[in-house]
Amino acid sequence: MSWRRKHLIDVDDWEREDFELLLEQTSNMDSILDRSIKKAPALRGKIVVNIFYEPSTRTRTSFEIAGKLLSADVINWTASGSSAAKGESLRDTIWTLEAMGADAVVIRHGEVGVPYYLAEKLKKASVINGGDGTHAHPTQALLDLYTAWRELGSLDGKKVAIVGDILHSRVARSDIYAFKAVGAEVYLSGPSTLMPTDINSLNAMYEPNIAEAIEGADIVYMLRIQRERQDAGLFPSLDEYHRRYGLTDKLLGKAKKGALVMHPGPINRGVEIASSVADGPQSFVLKQVRAGVAVRMALLYLMLGGVKE
Amino acid sequence: MSWRRKHLIDVDDWEREDFELLLEQTSNMDSILDRSIKKAPALRGKIVVNIFYEPSTRTRTSFEIAGKLLSADVINWTASGSSAAKGESLRDTIWTLEAMGADAVVIRHGEVGVPYYLAEKLKKASVINGGDGTHAHPTQALLDLYTAWRELGSLDGKKVAIVGDILHSRVARSDIYAFKAVGAEVYLSGPSTLMPTDINSLNAMYEPNIAEAIEGADIVYMLRIQRERQDAGLFPSLDEYHRRYGLTDKLLGKAKKGALVMHPGPINRGVEIASSVADGPQSFVLKQVRAGVAVRMALLYLMLGGVKE
Amino acid sequence: MSWRRKHLIDVDDWEREDFELLLEQTSNMDSILDRSIKKAPALRGKIVVNIFYEPSTRTRTSFEIAGKLLSADVINWTASGSSAAKGESLRDTIWTLEAMGADAVVIRHGEVGVPYYLAEKLKKASVINGGDGTHAHPTQALLDLYTAWRELGSLDGKKVAIVGDILHSRVARSDIYAFKAVGAEVYLSGPSTLMPTDINSLNAMYEPNIAEAIEGADIVYMLRIQRERQDAGLFPSLDEYHRRYGLTDKLLGKAKKGALVMHPGPINRGVEIASSVADGPQSFVLKQVRAGVAVRMALLYLMLGGVKE
Repeated sequence: MSWRRKHLIDVDDWEREDFELLLEQTSNMDSILDRSIKKAPALRGKIVVNIFYEPSTRTRTSFEIAGKLLSADVINWTASGSSAAKGESLRDTIWTLEAMGADAVVIRHGEVGVPYYLAEKLKKASVINGGDGTHAHPTQALLDLYTAWRELGSLDGKKVAIVGDILHSRVARSDIYAFKAVGAEVYLSGPSTLMPTDINSLNAMYEPNIAEAIEGADIVYMLRIQRERQDAGLFPSLDEYHRRYGLTDKLLGKAKKGALVMHPGPINRGVEIASSVADGPQSFVLKQVRAGVAVRMALLYLMLGGVKE
Repeated sequence: MSWRRKHLIDVDDWEREDFELLLEQTSNMDSILDRSIKKAPALRGKIVVNIFYEPSTRTRTSFEIAGKLLSADVINWTASGSSAAKGESLRDTIWTLEAMGADAVVIRHGEVGVPYYLAEKLKKASVINGGDGTHAHPTQALLDLYTAWRELGSLDGKKVAIVGDILHSRVARSDIYAFKAVGAEVYLSGPSTLMPTDINSLNAMYEPNIAEAIEGADIVYMLRIQRERQDAGLFPSLDEYHRRYGLTDKLLGKAKKGALVMHPGPINRGVEIASSVADGPQSFVLKQVRAGVAVRMALLYLMLGGVKE
Repeated sequence: MSWRRKHLIDVDDWEREDFELLLEQTSNMDSILDRSIKKAPALRGKIVVNIFYEPSTRTRTSFEIAGKLLSADVINWTASGSSAAKGESLRDTIWTLEAMGADAVVIRHGEVGVPYYLAEKLKKASVINGGDGTHAHPTQALLDLYTAWRELGSLDGKKVAIVGDILHSRVARSDIYAFKAVGAEVYLSGPSTLMPTDINSLNAMYEPNIAEAIEGADIVYMLRIQRERQDAGLFPSLDEYHRRYGLTDKLLGKAKKGALVMHPGPINRGVEIASSVADGPQSFVLKQVRAGVAVRMALLYLMLGGVKE
């Protein structure tokens, strides 16, 4: 099977073999990160443009490093609020980028669906969704999958517990799809005020009791709490949240021995995760960060038709 | 004839053969943009610094891509308002850049004449004017010229209509000069409130009636309307502006069949140009963007003495 | 003797031979800056991240150019105020950068000691202090030393006068240490309100009379006056400061014939230094800027184990 996608908007139409191909390719890229000279010429002469309408130094930098390690030229387009105000001018912006020679445009935008819209408008360049509103964050799902697969091998029948603010989380949406596609079981937990009303449509089991949700899990995936949700009255206080839904060593004891603890970052220590867990032997948080670079290298390589070394 | 200019401050002292040499060189660079590996080693080990005191992601990015495609190292200097306040400190800033090894400094500044001043102060580095106040925008004129020349061949005797806010437009000033220098006739149109009082000195014909100005034109060049001009009372409303001076399909019908529609970007759809025209078959707006990269590559190559492949 | 330091936090534990090794290596790098192709492959495949919590386009750009000239990939991490608020999240930030593959992290931070703290936390990456609070600015000291050494040769027994706001100056602290370590004598001068109370612990002589301090000096090092010190009432006015402590041609006449005038930049013309002195034949201000690139190249090369050409 070979790669056949021009854009990466969401993983919700990926089949199992798509994920498997990507995992294998990511594994190749991951080995480049261990070299003393972390550089390959595969994307020399290709242009990758980052255009982030929501601030995210982490994701932007991860794409920047991924592109540069493959010798692409990476441009950070400064998305000013004003020019982003109208969808029309966003369209003109990406046409401009394409005309300047962009081979791939990585976009993060607060509004759902913007990457879809842009992918339809572009003639040659590839679009990579770096996160759109509460909708999807496909590269996060792929790096999470790679992190788990690299450690556990096949994910068939594995239990994944995703805990926290499912309602507002594009990470959760993309991760549920990805883990299910490769055969895992997904359980969701968190305050009912932070669950979507259509939770049954998510194709995962909802277990309000977090201890039950985590029971025997192979992977415990904690979501980041946005403090502004507290202001909106969706939970009483950060302390209270931590007491009821934070991942402590004791709670982690409910999971399978040696279960992987994951988090999309940046972590709120003492809120959704205790510091001792974040820094403990089961934490895969920094391995996820590293996987993020590898998975983005693999995607850019596959999408831009990289030249073999 | 060979290249003999250290700086690019304005094109108003260029002779016809200067333009022709630049057009030929741009043509070479343009072909690099079509390669699957868009990269040449010509400026390896050269440093280009962008220093923009007015925001312009487009022009800055165009220079950044141009430099990188020729393997130069491109630095975006963050021009803080405070350090830009005094000409004296600007002088110290560019001396600093030169001392750090800058081979070329691309500057955009709100005040007329700043690039001249800097070119006098620098000992070794080249200055490229990326736009100074309402005075000049030479790389815009060169990319416009290239776009037209590539499509039409010789511009001798061709009719160019430039429409809009001539008064505040550095683009118009530079374009008039460039098009005239290669033999074209230039007509200006737009509201009388947006015409300079010394319009006769511009070496172009003023035709208040836009339909007359466009009549039989080979190139219809629409300028961007700055919304703040409306607040200053220079025209009644954007709608009114569009009705009287916006380029619609009907109005474009007055021009020569197949006339080129050009605009420096970003376009205000529904104000100076109708969307149907901007996206129509006669629109060269995106070709101008591409030409911008090629012309900046050619300039950097000629000014920094690029090494032949 | 070979290089044996993983981090550069301060020079206060450097021995004379450390400085000498660095000076020799800087000299090699300096010669690269004279080549028409200013580029060496030594750090290809290495990642250098700039993370600046205080604005400093100069120092950041100097590191960026230094890294790029040695073919490293340089990433400018945007340090947002919010994520910098807590030491804890700063720790997570640099762990993230390390996980993304950073080989060196260059940090500037307003709080004293932050680079020490980070160096302890990092497992593999090197930390370079780009200035921490009023504590240390080691690369400034090294570039100052190199500038002086290149011009004067051995600094044994040479007299260095450092004038201005010693109290708030990390530059002064690092320079005193470095110049003393290679055998120079250091005299301090400036308003008593801008002298630290523990001035005797600085291992330099305090001479309130600036003319005496400069008398016979080989190097006159003027510190930058921060205008906010005036608001704090530490000196009456900029004019008054200039009259009493500014370096004029007349005052410079007290120093040894041909003495070097140095300043960390950016200079305040007419405050701590007269324009005629800053632009005069004894000014080494721009040579310091150039030395800054060379010394940072040498440091990155030594710390990241650069590959020989």
